Amino acid sequence: MSQWRTTVPAPSVRSRKAAQVHQQRLTKPPGSLGRLEQIAVDFAGWQDRVMPRVEKVSVCVFAGDHGVVEEAVSAFPQTVTGQMILNFAAGGAAIAVLARLADADFSVVNLGTATPVPETRGVINAQLAPGSANFCKRAAMSPALMNRALQCGADAAPTAADIFIGGEMGIGNSTAAAALVSALLDLPPEATVGRGTGIDDAALAVKRAVVQRGLDLHQGAASDALDMLRRLGGLEIAALTGAYIACAQRRIPSLVDGYICSAAALVACRVNPGVRDWLLFAHRSEEPGHRHLLKALSADPLLDLGMRLGEGSGAATALPLLRSACALHAEMATFAEAGVADREAPT
Amino acid sequence: MSQWRTTVPAPSVRSRKAAQVHQQRLTKPPGSLGRLEQIAVDFAGWQDRVMPRVEKVSVCVFAGDHGVVEEAVSAFPQTVTGQMILNFAAGGAAIAVLARLADADFSVVNLGTATPVPETRGVINAQLAPGSANFCKRAAMSPALMNRALQCGADAAPTAADIFIGGEMGIGNSTAAAALVSALLDLPPEATVGRGTGIDDAALAVKRAVVQRGLDLHQGAASDALDMLRRLGGLEIAALTGAYIACAQRRIPSLVDGYICSAAALVACRVNPGVRDWLLFAHRSEEPGHRHLLKALSADPLLDLGMRLGEGSGAATALPLLRSACALHAEMATFAEAGVADREAPT
Repeated sequence: MSQWRTTVPAPSVRSRKAAQVHQQRLTKPPGSLGRLEQIAVDFAGWQDRVMPRVEKVSVCVFAGDHGVVEEAVSAFPQTVTGQMILNFAAGGAAIAVLARLADADFSVVNLGTATPVPETRGVINAQLAPGSANFCKRAAMSPALMNRALQCGADAAPTAADIFIGGEMGIGNSTAAAALVSALLDLPPEATVGRGTGIDDAALAVKRAVVQRGLDLHQGAASDALDMLRRLGGLEIAALTGAYIACAQRRIPSLVDGYICSAAALVACRVNPGVRDWLLFAHRSEEPGHRHLLKALSADPLLDLGMRLGEGSGAATALPLLRSACALHAEMATFAEAGVADREAPT
Repeated sequence: MSQWRTTVPAPSVRSRKAAQVHQQRLTKPPGSLGRLEQIAVDFAGWQDRVMPRVEKVSVCVFAGDHGVVEEAVSAFPQTVTGQMILNFAAGGAAIAVLARLADADFSVVNLGTATPVPETRGVINAQLAPGSANFCKRAAMSPALMNRALQCGADAAPTAADIFIGGEMGIGNSTAAAALVSALLDLPPEATVGRGTGIDDAALAVKRAVVQRGLDLHQGAASDALDMLRRLGGLEIAALTGAYIACAQRRIPSLVDGYICSAAALVACRVNPGVRDWLLFAHRSEEPGHRHLLKALSADPLLDLGMRLGEGSGAATALPLLRSACALHAEMATFAEAGVADREAPT
């Protein structure tokens, strides 16, 4: 397991400072571009250059099925996971549309569905298992299976990119994420369980009870964050965790999507705290538990648009903000270049 | 003045409804794209077609000087207005960078600076007056001057575009906007005056007192919203008002920027209430008075990134969200097309 704990390099403090100085020279009141200024400074640190660019974008969607679906926690049938994998590859899913609009590299990894998915162009069909096990009965993954899922994530993550966006698909995965978040943050199911794809009040009560059963079975026995992931998470959540860690180790920042991705990000940061410096949070999900995750990660996301789709769609929606921030930073004139009087100048 | 009150056409209810029905068929849980779904439906109503597109974007920055600057209300010297006009035309200002990134049509209108700006390619040099008058002493504009400014805005607004973004530049214009908002919403200067380009506490107290003097002189005498605009506003704020009204009359929606643009939008809606149906609000400005304007306009802006630059920069930053929303609406597969089971299907 030591590869996941291997030290993550720190962003360049020198380039961050130089970028901050450059921001002060641009033709605008200091600070008036708000978060866009901070984003440009973050990228300067990540790319270790004063004029960073967001050109190469890598989007990877990880999919997997969840044994806990047999407890009736989702509004959609389990077959949808495999069907959506094909929809990603065919370009019809939300994240596929947004990745195309952003001219991003786009890949899909099937970690394991209950019913195997046929070999399809554009899909890395790993099929490590027919989904995770039902965490109400046993651990979602064996140690060996989780390691293979983590490794699949690291292998699918880019080796060179200006930003990585991880996405996820898996009927039942908001239940797994809620159980994992409850375990990691010691929160009751009431705080972490939401309506997911849109369940009614009765199903919400069932979902909370299911999460509580998982916590009763596993919380006391879990030894650390990775063990909580193994017991309560899922294949695609493990892959995301591996991808976030691998990207940080390769000096590639990640733009984190919503609830499920943030749960994986929290595990990644618990395993290897240096990962946090390479994460930017895209949006505030409608899933009520997301705010607890964001607080635990000291994250203030860029967007709050009432989104709750997953797939990486919130991150892809926020992506243009990163490009705008870096374009402003690189292309705006300085006061000296434009012959504009700075605030200290006489009237 | 009747042209400003000429009825604005209503967005198409039929196309909105058809777009809402189409959204329900796309491969995602209903409502899970949040505001992006509403944006697509809004554009369907505006373009009167089920599959709207945001291709042609028109950005126009209106600039003018303010006589009230002699009361020492700004952190920057008045010469900056003219210098920034040249910076817009040269492509070095924030809005110029963002307009270029968005492949938008970009124009700059100089309504009138204290020191004339030389004829410059890319600048419509109207120069109606050497800025507005100091509203602490007299009305900012004569009726004839304000009419010419309103007309300049209408003339510069696009005759065909998928979305219009108005921007503004004018040293002192957050003081004029604060006075106008105080008068329109009957709010004290404490609620409407902010730090603008970044004044200190002492200058903030001066700015509040200046706004109060303007209210004392004009508020009781103003006959309606246009008369408040004439007495307390400014040339570029009047031009924005004219542009928003003209766009709505031409069935072109506007993406409204921050504090100053929203003040112009409120005047436009008071003059011609049908304009409101053609406005989308881009971002929540750091200027504290903006929240009162947004509330009065029943507006929930898309972004909240701590921006306070003006120029239309917040609107241009939000623009990619509109393109994402329409691309998702047009390009996502339906459940039937993708062969994905809907939530009603059996497990």
